[in-house]
Amino acid sequence: MAKSERHNGVDFERDQSHQHTHDAMQECIEECLNCHAVCTMTLQHCIATGGEHTEVNLIGILLDCAEICQTSANFMLRGSPYHVVTCAACAELCRACEEACRAVNADEQLAHCGEVCGACAESCDRMAQMGSEE
Amino acid sequence: MAKSERHNGVDFERDQSHQHTHDAMQECIEECLNCHAVCTMTLQHCIATGGEHTEVNLIGILLDCAEICQTSANFMLRGSPYHVVTCAACAELCRACEEACRAVNADEQLAHCGEVCGACAESCDRMAQMGSEE
Amino acid sequence: MAKSERHNGVDFERDQSHQHTHDAMQECIEECLNCHAVCTMTLQHCIATGGEHTEVNLIGILLDCAEICQTSANFMLRGSPYHVVTCAACAELCRACEEACRAVNADEQLAHCGEVCGACAESCDRMAQMGSEE
Amino acid sequence: MAKSERHNGVDFERDQSHQHTHDAMQECIEECLNCHAVCTMTLQHCIATGGEHTEVNLIGILLDCAEICQTSANFMLRGSPYHVVTCAACAELCRACEEACRAVNADEQLAHCGEVCGACAESCDRMAQMGSEE
Repeated sequence: MAKSERHNGVDFERDQSHQHTHDAMQECIEECLNCHAVCTMTLQHCIATGGEHTEVNLIGILLDCAEICQTSANFMLRGSPYHVVTCAACAELCRACEEACRAVNADEQLAHCGEVCGACAESCDRMAQMGSEE
Repeated sequence: MAKSERHNGVDFERDQSHQHTHDAMQECIEECLNCHAVCTMTLQHCIATGGEHTEVNLIGILLDCAEICQTSANFMLRGSPYHVVTCAACAELCRACEEACRAVNADEQLAHCGEVCGACAESCDRMAQMGSEE
Repeated sequence: MAKSERHNGVDFERDQSHQHTHDAMQECIEECLNCHAVCTMTLQHCIATGGEHTEVNLIGILLDCAEICQTSANFMLRGSPYHVVTCAACAELCRACEEACRAVNADEQLAHCGEVCGACAESCDRMAQMGSEE
Repeated sequence: MAKSERHNGVDFERDQSHQHTHDAMQECIEECLNCHAVCTMTLQHCIATGGEHTEVNLIGILLDCAEICQTSANFMLRGSPYHVVTCAACAELCRACEEACRAVNADEQLAHCGEVCGACAESCDRMAQMGSEE
């Protein structure tokens, strides 16, 4: 697992199965970068809003999720074979963040953040499984 | 300078001058995230290519530029008033990276990276000047 | 797993079992920060040395290991309950980096880096197991 | 400015003036890593404490300062000649964070954080000036 050679990052081979992997990875990079951005902006929203929005576990998971998404995106951008490790970790954090966002009622920004985290978790799970099957 | 209040990050006020700032910042965030991604992939390309592409100053500036772009984007995503400081630093690094990329002949990936760095430098310069005029 | 409440980060409770956890976490933070620093300096050494030292898998794993060590340290500094996830990922990357460093003969800096990675892997494994037993 | 060659990162030359630079840089790396860690723990402390401690400008500057300290340390660990740019930015952020910490009365953790930020600002200023005189 996680032992295949490092990809070039830009000049992926163009046979079909690699193309499939490439597209899935490209999509996952975008999901991770988007989730990082949305969690960071949502954090700012929570602190500006105050009250229950600054509850320690919510702020904490937003910071955690933003950071692991950035790390996970960077591993894929470098074409690292170890992206399966970071994608698996990222999926777990994204699910936890999705749950924390959904636990707060009647906040559009948090609802949006929860959706983005859910989509990123799914994409990262797919990448983690693809990698470990290789 | 850099002393205005922290923005909410998502609920920017909607009067005209702020809208203008908001659009420019949104564009600059995208330029920085893109430049971070392209520098990281170009680094991988250089190491995979070998030879003069692994020259210490080229690899070094690609790492530097990728990191400051990430930091600069994060400051803007948080709506930090200190984005003027990080944007100014980012503009300087992007120009240095553009120059290093253009110094290598006949490499499409490096040529593309140089263009992306140039565009990011311009966008960051605009943000730094806007902020210091406030 | 990973579901205990977020620690304060500085005012850990002082009963014995928590004190034990606190000391182990403090040690692991230091190992991760040290491993991040040593991998980053070793990367620079490899690029400056050239030749087989710039081989794509070696440079790649040094970048990967440095980044996950930084992320893992940050999770613990924030007192995140999800440090068990990032410590487990960090341990895996540190072992891979240790192996890559040891594969190059007769290079003091790489030998040192391999040792530091090995120590960090052990410390992270301990934290990951401690957390999942809670 | 910022145009000297990239250092090896570990095998600095050993003539006197370089030794002096090396020691000052080593000290500055440690100040930045320490300041990053203390700001990150102080952030956690503020969120756990609640009330005025979660005020948006305080949380924001702690996040900003932690991130630029990490970036600044990484530039020096890589032996980048552009550390003068990031050290100058870091000094400015550290001073702002010191001020924000000192503005809150009767909080030991914030008082400690203010001191650490002040020391890091001084060290970064020295590095920035040294670099621009070269």
